[in-house]
Order: sequence, then C-alpha cells, then structure tokens
Amino acid sequence: MSEGDNLLIGDIPGFTPQIGRLVSMMNHVRSTTLAAVADLTVDQLDYLCDAQSNSIGGLLTHIAATEVGYQAATFDSRDLSTEEKQEWGAALELGEKARREIRGHELDYYVSRLKQVRANTLTELGRRDDQWLDEQTSFGSGQRVNNHFKWFHVFGHELNHRGQIRWLRRRATTSS
Amino acid sequence: MSEGDNLLIGDIPGFTPQIGRLVSMMNHVRSTTLAAVADLTVDQLDYLCDAQSNSIGGLLTHIAATEVGYQAATFDSRDLSTEEKQEWGAALELGEKARREIRGHELDYYVSRLKQVRANTLTELGRRDDQWLDEQTSFGSGQRVNNHFKWFHVFGHELNHRGQIRWLRRRATTSS
Repeated sequence: MSEGDNLLIGDIPGFTPQIGRLVSMMNHVRSTTLAAVADLTVDQLDYLCDAQSNSIGGLLTHIAATEVGYQAATFDSRDLSTEEKQEWGAALELGEKARREIRGHELDYYVSRLKQVRANTLTELGRRDDQWLDEQTSFGSGQRVNNHFKWFHVFGHELNHRGQIRWLRRRATTSS
Repeated sequence: MSEGDNLLIGDIPGFTPQIGRLVSMMNHVRSTTLAAVADLTVDQLDYLCDAQSNSIGGLLTHIAATEVGYQAATFDSRDLSTEEKQEWGAALELGEKARREIRGHELDYYVSRLKQVRANTLTELGRRDDQWLDEQTSFGSGQRVNNHFKWFHVFGHELNHRGQIRWLRRRATTSS
C-alpha cells in the first residue's frame, strides 16, 4: 500500500515509477501475509496437518529465503553463497528437513527475519531504476526473463504460500 | 507472459504501458493456474480433504466469479445483477453451498468459464488507459482504492487460491 491504509498502486517517494508500483504490490502482499499469521502461538506455527504438510513457520521462512535468493540473483547476479545456503537451505527446499529444523520459534522470530530481508530489498530497489527493471537475462533453455518478472514472481510466490498459510491457520487454530 | 514462453513483464500490443504490465502479470498467473490443474479428473476436481475444504473445481469457479465481480465494479461501477448473483453466488461464497452445487464437471467446463470471463476482461482493459487505472473510488470507511489495485487484487486473489489448489492437487492425486 502506498499511503497508510489506502489501497493504491502507484508512485512511492524514493522509487522510480515502475519500481514504485512494484513496491506498492509487494508492501500490500506483505501486510496481508502478516495479518494471516497475527497472534499465532508456537504450536500453531509448528502445526502440520498431515505427513506432507509444511508448517506456517516453515512457509514464512521459505518466503524470506526466496526473497534472499532473488536478491542475490538480481542485485549481485550470483547464486547463494555456501554460508547463505547453510542459513536458508532447509527453508528453500521445505519438506522433511524444514519440518525437522524450522520449529519451536515465536512469531516474532519469523517476522523479524522477513523484515530484515525486506529492508535490504527496499534499499537495493531504491538504488535502481525502471531501465534496470526491464533488463533481461536468459535461462539455460533460452527463455528470457526480466528483473520486473523476477520481483513480480517474489510477491506472487508469497501470495501462493499465503493461501496455504490461511488454509493451515484455519485448521491449526481449531485443532488444538 | 508477454511473448510466448518468455517471462517478461512489459509492453503488450493493444494495451497502454501500465495496463500492459498488469496484463503480463495476469497472463502469467493464469498460465500457472491452468498448469496446476492440468489433466485432473472429475473426482480429483471434486476432492475434499476435510469437512471445511473447498474443492479444486470450487476454487476455479471462485477465481472466475471474483473476476466477474471486479468487471462489474470497475468497468460498469455497479454490483452484480440478480442474474449474475444467481450464476456466481455459490462460487463467490464458497463453503457448504459451493461444495453441494459445484461438482461433477470435467476440467474443460471450468477452464472454458475462466477463458470466457478473461476474454471479456482483456477486451475491456484494451479499451481503457493508464489514467483510468489510476482512478480512485472510496470504500464506506473512507479508504481509497484505485483500479490498478483492484486488478492487482484479482490476480493476487487467484495466486492465493492457486497455492491452495497445488496443496489440494498433491493430496487429491495420491489419495485415490
């Protein structure tokens, strides 16, 4: 959201026009993710609805980890370092390892990690312009992708998992 | 996606610059929704994972119904008519009524409805410009919202439910 509680996609001071519109979307998505996890307890954040399930805590960390991956890819044109993979690997992969390793934390722990990562994203986006957003790279297959798409994908990926978080929240908060 | 298989957010012929970027996002989201339901059978589209669950068929119709609602709101500044509410009401509300009424259809049925609604959206967006996208209205609370936000919300809402569809698909395709 670009202005307080208003629901506007548009210019945001400190960003070029297209980046401002992208950041408006990212900000709004984030506010809804945080609303979806408000007041959850440690048990609810760890809740698994079946053997294949990811926890809400796992999904929140996955959202942050994905953003870290795209920071490296778009701001530094590199893959994650060994240390970053150590820190974020389980969250990126989800599944068994994430169920085992990402648990037992209070909501604040997850929210702070999200905030820390996002602060870095906004600083870096503030240093760039709309021309950068249009810059393209290619995947091995020859498929072209621009930075605008990559950052659209970051918040789209968050929305996808926010849908799952809402689904889990309904079950986690009625099952205990 | 704006060009074939490429992952680009940018200009699309027939749309003004901001609308083109929005349509790039909407097109990409839709292609991933359709990929998420590819080859599902009637039973899988009707699958419910528990008593609160929506089916994939219900969610696909909910996505189409929401788009119809925003067409009325933004293109015609009106609520849905009685006939439209009759047609889309269960899908809009989801829950018990949707579980009862939206079932027994082949995938093509859901995909055609999505396509029919989307064709209308694209025709109408092609008739409008970036200034229209910035036009604001107010909710009763005084909160302002622009057309850009409303159409961002339509594809964001779809992504949220695509996350749930993927979640359901994994369970629907292994449970039978």
